Amino acid sequence: MKRKITLKQIAKELDVSISTVSKALSNSKEISEDTTQKIQAFAKLYNYRPNNIALSLKNRKTKTIGILIPEIVHHFFSTVIRGIERVANRRGYNVIVGLSNESFTKEIINMELLANGSIDGFILSISKETLLKQDYHHFNATINQGIPIVMFDRVVNEVDCDKVIVDDFKGAFNAVESLIDKNCKNIALITTMDYVSVGKLRTQGYLEALEEHKMVADSNLILKIDDSLDVENNLDVLEAEIAQFLKSNPNIDGIFAVNELYAVSAMKVAKKIGLQIPDDIQVIGFTDGVLSKHASPSLTTVSQHGQKIGEQAANLLIDRLEAEDAEIDQYFSSSSRKPSYIKMVIETEIIERESTK
Amino acid sequence: MKRKITLKQIAKELDVSISTVSKALSNSKEISEDTTQKIQAFAKLYNYRPNNIALSLKNRKTKTIGILIPEIVHHFFSTVIRGIERVANRRGYNVIVGLSNESFTKEIINMELLANGSIDGFILSISKETLLKQDYHHFNATINQGIPIVMFDRVVNEVDCDKVIVDDFKGAFNAVESLIDKNCKNIALITTMDYVSVGKLRTQGYLEALEEHKMVADSNLILKIDDSLDVENNLDVLEAEIAQFLKSNPNIDGIFAVNELYAVSAMKVAKKIGLQIPDDIQVIGFTDGVLSKHASPSLTTVSQHGQKIGEQAANLLIDRLEAEDAEIDQYFSSSSRKPSYIKMVIETEIIERESTK
Repeated sequence: MKRKITLKQIAKELDVSISTVSKALSNSKEISEDTTQKIQAFAKLYNYRPNNIALSLKNRKTKTIGILIPEIVHHFFSTVIRGIERVANRRGYNVIVGLSNESFTKEIINMELLANGSIDGFILSISKETLLKQDYHHFNATINQGIPIVMFDRVVNEVDCDKVIVDDFKGAFNAVESLIDKNCKNIALITTMDYVSVGKLRTQGYLEALEEHKMVADSNLILKIDDSLDVENNLDVLEAEIAQFLKSNPNIDGIFAVNELYAVSAMKVAKKIGLQIPDDIQVIGFTDGVLSKHASPSLTTVSQHGQKIGEQAANLLIDRLEAEDAEIDQYFSSSSRKPSYIKMVIETEIIERESTK
Repeated sequence: MKRKITLKQIAKELDVSISTVSKALSNSKEISEDTTQKIQAFAKLYNYRPNNIALSLKNRKTKTIGILIPEIVHHFFSTVIRGIERVANRRGYNVIVGLSNESFTKEIINMELLANGSIDGFILSISKETLLKQDYHHFNATINQGIPIVMFDRVVNEVDCDKVIVDDFKGAFNAVESLIDKNCKNIALITTMDYVSVGKLRTQGYLEALEEHKMVADSNLILKIDDSLDVENNLDVLEAEIAQFLKSNPNIDGIFAVNELYAVSAMKVAKKIGLQIPDDIQVIGFTDGVLSKHASPSLTTVSQHGQKIGEQAANLLIDRLEAEDAEIDQYFSSSSRKPSYIKMVIETEIIERESTK
């Protein structure tokens, strides 16, 4: 029996990137004709089974959903998975989880692996590296090959598919507005680098809320954490950075942090340097996980409703899979047979706890 | 093209359980000859691709590890996955995660799905329902079909394979001994039901430590939480149960809890009823997760080193996969060509924090 060759092996053998192989096999115009021919010939020779075999397998339903997420040690993603599972179980589907580890290449490898007949459709959140590269060919190729995708949380306009998002902008806006209502005059933002779409939207929400209330945004009050740092294993580094930030800006009386770890760390640092929460400084985080509930003082947060996101994403995907079977019209635009996609926005909610007045 | 049929569909069609189908297809003697014949004929008719096709695919390495765990919203399991990933990435392997949701049937379905050519080997922790049923045929069938398994944490003697465990007995023993050293006279245990092997071992460690120190075990001081309860979404129920327990036993001055959620909840309840920690009551938990670090007071715990467990499990599995390729002798006993398996014990460690004196 012939060995099955993988994208990775083809890439290695021909000394090109996995992404190049992936693009050549889906006839992307980004790759030269010469390279495309070489790669396709090689793939054929070694019996590479491209994803579009999925087309001919259209009737072979696996009743399995592939979930592709950036990381697993993360309360938000795991609650989304819980939501997906709940709906999947109820509707007779199984789930399998692939992890991109925030890597573009691993995202492609996992998609290839799962799309080769193990799953009927994907629910995914894009890796940071993919967002940085802005290279989404693998998603579009998968959709073109008849495997539907539902994106959640980290989504992009460049891919046409069903999406479930939280209103990051409005969530952040409301959080900052609530700090303003509670009399904060110098509100700091602790955020990630801009290329992560959700971080960006939350930053915009922060800026907009200040503007709306005629407060001047001060770039000194914005701390951007380098999130290539594995913070959970480097809490010291994170805390040192926040300590430096708070000491340099003693006027800060409110903090909005784009995730709960930053928020809880900020509270810890603030307490260490003698600040009272919420009297001297009020803190609101984003994402309502176990840390927020059990922190001391307990943390006021913007809840993302991860489980609800997962449930909606699973319903959207399964509805589409079953509509495709039945060729139900509502999933297609009336003029053409092109699918019409749904973008679902899950409202956030502020959960008031002890870290604010 | 013929539709591929799944175990689940065969079971439904013939009105038998998935487990019966799975057993019949692996020629288990537990199933009557009549039923076995019927199921096998049906499976053949509908082109069912049994796992033993994996044998003929032996050369088709996917370089992918299948992880099968009971649940994902669980810090311990997610740190194990992180450890597996770290080693897998370094050694050129990819990982895919299946979730049993503590269900026997889902465990079988996931194994079938992944064993059909998507993965080279499994790293898994057994579901509660499987432990209750004591039915391990699906693990043995998978191993017999040439797909190696490494079990971690929840393991059983009935399956012969590589295993990585924490010394639950000794970890619990040390924790309780440390409470005794710190002058606790009436030490309570908050644990799970006995059928979960780790809960059982930790309970034994508790009892043994008391005996060793000539203290009498009082069954009133043992609280068994019904872990079919989804505690994370029913914290109130858990806390009410603990409150009742502490009020009925005002003499308790030390608590050993078999996981950190129970420990943190116990501290919360104790504080509510006016007890000072650690002055009136000292608390030690098991599993060192984010909750322990961020609780107030921070929690003394027995660390399970989840990441190390994952790393060791991944190394064991990849070593075996690569040894099989190379037919390296150290992985087989000298007398026969039967594999000789390794049981690796990861030592626990007590991390002292504020909840003990």
